[in-house]
Amino acid sequence: MKLTPEQKQEIADQQTQKNTTKRVTSQELEKILYEALPVLDHGFVRVVDYMGDDSSIVQSARVSYGKGTKKVSTDEGLIKYLMRHWHSTPFEMCEIKYHVKLPIFIARQWIRHRTANVNEYSARYSILDKEFYIPSKDQLSAQSTSNRQGRGDLITGDQADEVLKILKDDATRTYGNYEKMLNERFDGTTIDENKAGLARELARMNLTLNSYTQWYWKTDLLNLLNFLFLRADSHAQYEIRVYAEVMLETVKKWVPITHAAFLDYRVGAAHVSAKGLKVIRSMLNGNKINYENSGLGKREWNELMETLELKNKLI
Amino acid sequence: MKLTPEQKQEIADQQTQKNTTKRVTSQELEKILYEALPVLDHGFVRVVDYMGDDSSIVQSARVSYGKGTKKVSTDEGLIKYLMRHWHSTPFEMCEIKYHVKLPIFIARQWIRHRTANVNEYSARYSILDKEFYIPSKDQLSAQSTSNRQGRGDLITGDQADEVLKILKDDATRTYGNYEKMLNERFDGTTIDENKAGLARELARMNLTLNSYTQWYWKTDLLNLLNFLFLRADSHAQYEIRVYAEVMLETVKKWVPITHAAFLDYRVGAAHVSAKGLKVIRSMLNGNKINYENSGLGKREWNELMETLELKNKLI
Amino acid sequence: MKLTPEQKQEIADQQTQKNTTKRVTSQELEKILYEALPVLDHGFVRVVDYMGDDSSIVQSARVSYGKGTKKVSTDEGLIKYLMRHWHSTPFEMCEIKYHVKLPIFIARQWIRHRTANVNEYSARYSILDKEFYIPSKDQLSAQSTSNRQGRGDLITGDQADEVLKILKDDATRTYGNYEKMLNERFDGTTIDENKAGLARELARMNLTLNSYTQWYWKTDLLNLLNFLFLRADSHAQYEIRVYAEVMLETVKKWVPITHAAFLDYRVGAAHVSAKGLKVIRSMLNGNKINYENSGLGKREWNELMETLELKNKLI
Amino acid sequence: MKLTPEQKQEIADQQTQKNTTKRVTSQELEKILYEALPVLDHGFVRVVDYMGDDSSIVQSARVSYGKGTKKVSTDEGLIKYLMRHWHSTPFEMCEIKYHVKLPIFIARQWIRHRTANVNEYSARYSILDKEFYIPSKDQLSAQSTSNRQGRGDLITGDQADEVLKILKDDATRTYGNYEKMLNERFDGTTIDENKAGLARELARMNLTLNSYTQWYWKTDLLNLLNFLFLRADSHAQYEIRVYAEVMLETVKKWVPITHAAFLDYRVGAAHVSAKGLKVIRSMLNGNKINYENSGLGKREWNELMETLELKNKLI
Repeated sequence: MKLTPEQKQEIADQQTQKNTTKRVTSQELEKILYEALPVLDHGFVRVVDYMGDDSSIVQSARVSYGKGTKKVSTDEGLIKYLMRHWHSTPFEMCEIKYHVKLPIFIARQWIRHRTANVNEYSARYSILDKEFYIPSKDQLSAQSTSNRQGRGDLITGDQADEVLKILKDDATRTYGNYEKMLNERFDGTTIDENKAGLARELARMNLTLNSYTQWYWKTDLLNLLNFLFLRADSHAQYEIRVYAEVMLETVKKWVPITHAAFLDYRVGAAHVSAKGLKVIRSMLNGNKINYENSGLGKREWNELMETLELKNKLI
Repeated sequence: MKLTPEQKQEIADQQTQKNTTKRVTSQELEKILYEALPVLDHGFVRVVDYMGDDSSIVQSARVSYGKGTKKVSTDEGLIKYLMRHWHSTPFEMCEIKYHVKLPIFIARQWIRHRTANVNEYSARYSILDKEFYIPSKDQLSAQSTSNRQGRGDLITGDQADEVLKILKDDATRTYGNYEKMLNERFDGTTIDENKAGLARELARMNLTLNSYTQWYWKTDLLNLLNFLFLRADSHAQYEIRVYAEVMLETVKKWVPITHAAFLDYRVGAAHVSAKGLKVIRSMLNGNKINYENSGLGKREWNELMETLELKNKLI
Repeated sequence: MKLTPEQKQEIADQQTQKNTTKRVTSQELEKILYEALPVLDHGFVRVVDYMGDDSSIVQSARVSYGKGTKKVSTDEGLIKYLMRHWHSTPFEMCEIKYHVKLPIFIARQWIRHRTANVNEYSARYSILDKEFYIPSKDQLSAQSTSNRQGRGDLITGDQADEVLKILKDDATRTYGNYEKMLNERFDGTTIDENKAGLARELARMNLTLNSYTQWYWKTDLLNLLNFLFLRADSHAQYEIRVYAEVMLETVKKWVPITHAAFLDYRVGAAHVSAKGLKVIRSMLNGNKINYENSGLGKREWNELMETLELKNKLI
Repeated sequence: MKLTPEQKQEIADQQTQKNTTKRVTSQELEKILYEALPVLDHGFVRVVDYMGDDSSIVQSARVSYGKGTKKVSTDEGLIKYLMRHWHSTPFEMCEIKYHVKLPIFIARQWIRHRTANVNEYSARYSILDKEFYIPSKDQLSAQSTSNRQGRGDLITGDQADEVLKILKDDATRTYGNYEKMLNERFDGTTIDENKAGLARELARMNLTLNSYTQWYWKTDLLNLLNFLFLRADSHAQYEIRVYAEVMLETVKKWVPITHAAFLDYRVGAAHVSAKGLKVIRSMLNGNKINYENSGLGKREWNELMETLELKNKLI
């Protein structure tokens, strides 16, 4: 991630603001406000604004005239209770806004979460940055043979080199041709003064999906946690997971009590089906249960054994 | 509107907070933060939190690393442009949270605006305040004879007195019976120690629709303006309009540039149909147009003449 | 529930329609289309339209040119997989529309589910029906002593009679006064020809919260299942649960495969926290776990023991 | 647009369905149900399901037990009234589902309309079709000099040929390399049996933004009209406008009364600001108004003159 001197200055200018407010503040989050936290080779996540803290959840759950409850420990008990019993609306009362730079193919996954406000950098209006995502070697995985939607073993040696060369060459060539069609370079200089450039809204179609875009993305805490639950999960694609992981750290700084409850009742929790519950109850009663008499499908059986950390997985 | 000493203290405690933040602040809005602005006989509107200001709209429209543009006048030009051309997403980047006390029949109208976050005081869990909305005499209108959904002339004299007596008596009696069924008074004291009280979730059904409820209501600026456009309008029911008017004043303090653009391009603007445009163009070309040759329906003709401030309305 | 002869005729007219369509149909649901399924003393649920069936979920999950997959069993496998792995968007591809008559205090709970389309009967425009919900004696519960948001033991004898008398009398009186203020009876006849009636938008405030209202309510299958999960649950208030139960039966007729998966993976399933999982794993390894060494709070421990159907609950 | 014989057969199979239903049907829409209506060089729009017709809007606005009103003319009057006065919820009571094939850079514009349900063909799971959008020569416009977000004069001659060659060559080469990295051809055959292919979720990043994707897209009539208002507009990018135009024709077949009201009150209508209204009123009173004394900005003045079809535009 490279920022221009001008961008660095703009960030620094905001970071030196010292405004006085009657609103609640989150001092840990304030420390990293506006900072560009690096993700992937050229991407970043920046927290640019927020509203509320842990006490705001309590305050709205109680429709209170004042701040939360009297004690932090009471606040904590209530937040845990709300999380455990899936009360959703109090968590909607905190809001956060990020500035994110990310590859287009990841932006397309991300945008499927609709309950957020988005302003994306417009390639109809402006020229995109000359930056593409090229995976590092330890992420060059083959298609999984067991999971049609996942990664398998690492690709190595000559084949890895060839893949990386293709990705770099194709992104570089298509970007060069993008500039050529625009008759304008990424730094805004004109190539041939005697020519008109192709409309930006057309030229952009020549870019590859690993080109970087950026957006402002604003959402409430409930929907942010739903997003992070899905995208920080081990089954999520690596390239979006790394964004989710950085954002999860910002949640920890912002609303530490909620973050802890989220880890216990969501991230580390398991959802067990009615049939799965029967199996567990029977096991606890001392019965021998195996795949054949479990009533579960193969995949479900394996998932349950994994959840329970039992060794007798079905292969 | 009466606040208990405890409530007043809770509000005062929040108003004396002096927190330091790197976030943008709206100094005019800060001045009235947490204050209970009275509406109707017992209701209020309180701004309890907010995120962003006019510059945040510009910042996100430009997907900027820094604050808005360099100059306030440039910010203003851009905000007017965005409002005029119905760009919606930049206005979603500001957020505000209100604490509102309002009669239940108004809450039912209000909640139809779905794009907001709401936490309402729960009458399953707690006892509602002993407060009912009783209209002032200058609001006791008869049913409109021309508009099935509006108010006509004022009701006066004995009939007015009778209406007010009915409203007061019925609300007082049903509330008294609510306490009786609960076996508990509004102040939390038990009526008969030897009896169990009816479940709150049942007893509440005896209350009348002018009982006051309260909620935390949070929304983004775009959806707030949509709400205010409909509810601050002269066709809106008086009892919700007065809330909208108070909230419109808070918008003026919060985002003054957006507020001015909203008045020009929304509140004071008119939407003219294709057929209506034809009429205007023909008039500007010097043609005599009247209802008969206008191609418009009666009601549309009247509405157009009103918009144009022309006298020849069809009666 | 009483329908007027005219309403019965309107329903019958729609039920005799025999239209030809190329769309998929759900024959079991067609059998009860438009029928008023009774709920509570005067309420009902009517399915008035729907779009899609089980095969539509498969079709959209596969972004297919044709109908679902080749075989019903393959469709079933895919639907179960989607439900188990929380894939949400395919279930949004089916839509259903209900006409519901329900008490206002229940409508207020219901409307908190925002992801639906609603048209409610307008009491600004029309006169509400003269019908109020009066609980049956087996629902007259006292406030729960352990759960601030629930019901406890039944209220019986004189106290029960008194509660029922209050509810009937107050609803009848306030409705009578509503007619008086309107100067119009519920059947549309005028009371005193020499008087104007109070505006409907005002008079309605005198009604009690057990008055019946009605609305058209349309939602997609995903959001319907979320609604039913919460409202058909044993912790939901009885008066909304009975609506959810009737609707759940319509889901069974409409999309039987999805209904079965919903029962297994949602309704009958359990969500176990990270700490709860540790307890289960340890028990399965033969360790003696009790409340004291579990690391769980009291309430969580009890909930876990209930889920596992183990007797050693903490009292 | 080329469909495989198998796809054609799947479409034909659905079109020969003759199901009986008690639901309302739209006979004109039924005629083109499932048909792939061609858009751009390889795209299409298919209506795959729908719910309701014009009478459903009336039915829900009246919260009716039966169908719409007695007469079509009464239905028409009500629909026009609802459209003119921005009543939104009744139009949400009709729903439609499309299957769309479109270039990725257009899909990215389209998805910004969040109030819809979407299932997109997954390139993590499957291989994308070998099809790219190449503009026709009459769409090869230069960047507009007056509008930073639009198209200007046509690019012709050698420069046009060069642009088309770039677009074709780059799309072909990057797709070829996509297959090479996948070690699999678009028809599913393996290239080198001794190699593993790169994970699909990675290889896709090499594709250009004019590659075609497809999705199921479902929305209600209100949100569809909002989408069409913006995207069938002359300021919308040509490549999305052609989709909107085809969809507008399907709306005409589906709900002809609503379609006519939409043209009159939305598409052909104009929104005039408070300041613009002052200008019109003054002109109608016979005053000479020009840019200098209008109080409008340059751009606003020009837009108003265009709306009024007056010649004295400011250049």
